[in-house]
Amino acid sequence: MALKTDVLSESEFDLKQYVHTLRKEVDKALDRHLPRANTKPVTLHKAMRYSVFAGGKRLRPILCLAAAEACGGNRAQAMPLACALECIHTYSLIHDDLPAMDNDDFRRGRPTCHKVFGEAVAILAGDALLTLAFEIAAQCRGWRRYNHKDIILELAEAAGSRQLVGGQVADLEAEGRTIKESELRFIHERKTAALLTTSLRLGGMAANCNRSQLKALTDFGFNVGLAFQVIDDILDVTQSSEQLGKTAGKDQAVGKATYPAIVGLERSREIAAALTKKAFRALKDFHGRPQALLALGKYLLERDH
Amino acid sequence: MALKTDVLSESEFDLKQYVHTLRKEVDKALDRHLPRANTKPVTLHKAMRYSVFAGGKRLRPILCLAAAEACGGNRAQAMPLACALECIHTYSLIHDDLPAMDNDDFRRGRPTCHKVFGEAVAILAGDALLTLAFEIAAQCRGWRRYNHKDIILELAEAAGSRQLVGGQVADLEAEGRTIKESELRFIHERKTAALLTTSLRLGGMAANCNRSQLKALTDFGFNVGLAFQVIDDILDVTQSSEQLGKTAGKDQAVGKATYPAIVGLERSREIAAALTKKAFRALKDFHGRPQALLALGKYLLERDH
Repeated sequence: MALKTDVLSESEFDLKQYVHTLRKEVDKALDRHLPRANTKPVTLHKAMRYSVFAGGKRLRPILCLAAAEACGGNRAQAMPLACALECIHTYSLIHDDLPAMDNDDFRRGRPTCHKVFGEAVAILAGDALLTLAFEIAAQCRGWRRYNHKDIILELAEAAGSRQLVGGQVADLEAEGRTIKESELRFIHERKTAALLTTSLRLGGMAANCNRSQLKALTDFGFNVGLAFQVIDDILDVTQSSEQLGKTAGKDQAVGKATYPAIVGLERSREIAAALTKKAFRALKDFHGRPQALLALGKYLLERDH
Repeated sequence: MALKTDVLSESEFDLKQYVHTLRKEVDKALDRHLPRANTKPVTLHKAMRYSVFAGGKRLRPILCLAAAEACGGNRAQAMPLACALECIHTYSLIHDDLPAMDNDDFRRGRPTCHKVFGEAVAILAGDALLTLAFEIAAQCRGWRRYNHKDIILELAEAAGSRQLVGGQVADLEAEGRTIKESELRFIHERKTAALLTTSLRLGGMAANCNRSQLKALTDFGFNVGLAFQVIDDILDVTQSSEQLGKTAGKDQAVGKATYPAIVGLERSREIAAALTKKAFRALKDFHGRPQALLALGKYLLERDH
């Protein structure tokens, strides 16, 4: 898993070009959906834009769009949901970075939202992005099988107190404590896997996928999401800051619960490998065009930084 | 306006009993919609419940339910939206009370959410309630005229960066500065009138109201909302803490922008009277049963505490 694999040479699919194209499309759509920076109150809208356009990888939107294409849909159908997912992801980062939470001054090399705009505006910019996510999501087209009600429920549950927000609370409560593997899994499932799973499901739903496609996307998303986080934990202890492009060993330093800290490096690698296997097995008999999803999965789970 | 009027003796409508009944129904529905207090993570769900069941007057839900009944609908139809509105109102109070914002230790005589659960959990409980609002709202029944998409858009716009959240930012930015009447109106329209207007509109929409009813509810809601806030500002300077049941003169003490501070007490009373007149004019030729709404309007705009 920690071996560097050149996805592009292994596959006929040009992942680099695909990701580049989708990222540009997502950025354009987000720019259209976010209120102009000169909308009153200007500080708020500037803060929202500052954090949304802060060099994010657009992982959730890309997975969402790729899922729609895998099911025979087109990217335009899934774009409002892709943007909604990015708004939720961005809001969660703004609030996570606050002094009362992880107290981070930098993210991706830039000062965090509250460092630039102050705590009050950062809290409110997060609130506004969370609200905007539902405004954008409601603008998707609905189907008989997946109507607006289903789509809003899907998004709200993944972002809510039992999933994303719940994971963040559990993570904060675990800091500095020795927790069991089951508790760590509880956190990772909620903080990372839930929104990633929903990214894939919403892409499928936007393309009016069938039930077996939705099941496959769910299993793929959940296992990719969980594996992604376990690998993140492993890289934090095995790689240098230079390789990661961020401070290595930070989890350990602040007493964050991670897989290597709790089950050791060897067992962490076994867990990541098992989840990766499950993820790809989920797409084995997928009826559709799962090439992009498979390439994305390979890229995410075989990365070494 | 500051004269105390006994609404109940003036009208055949038993407002006291009506409000009492609706409040109980709303509390019961909120209890059903909120995750149990023992749902993991327990702290988060306890914090959400602590703030939702903190003795709120349920003004927005009651206006929503009364609007549905005014249009010939029943309360059950509007109940999910009524609960969603209260979740949004509660989240906004939790975040407003935070040290980075208004820094309030008490609300309605009880310690605020962050005083009991800490800042991090208070921020996240607010986030979770905002998210839950959309989850609950999506559970309403939709109509051909007002489908789930319309309803979610209505709620998201009223709670978003151009309305509720925008008003809070503008309010924070006005603190300690001398602002113009137009700026103060901008704040009050967004911080108070927007969600109150939407409360009435969503009630109408839940009852499948016609366009002219929706127009009347919008005008009534907006003017009641704005008048309500102007009256709040007036009472803060004219009444004693004992009469108000909260610290009088607090706005002035912290340099909050208020109508009396900016246009004087006399002009504030004129503005409140004009808005009140407009509010009742909006329901003058209402086709339906606006009795409860009229009684509620009278009660809200003729109160002296």
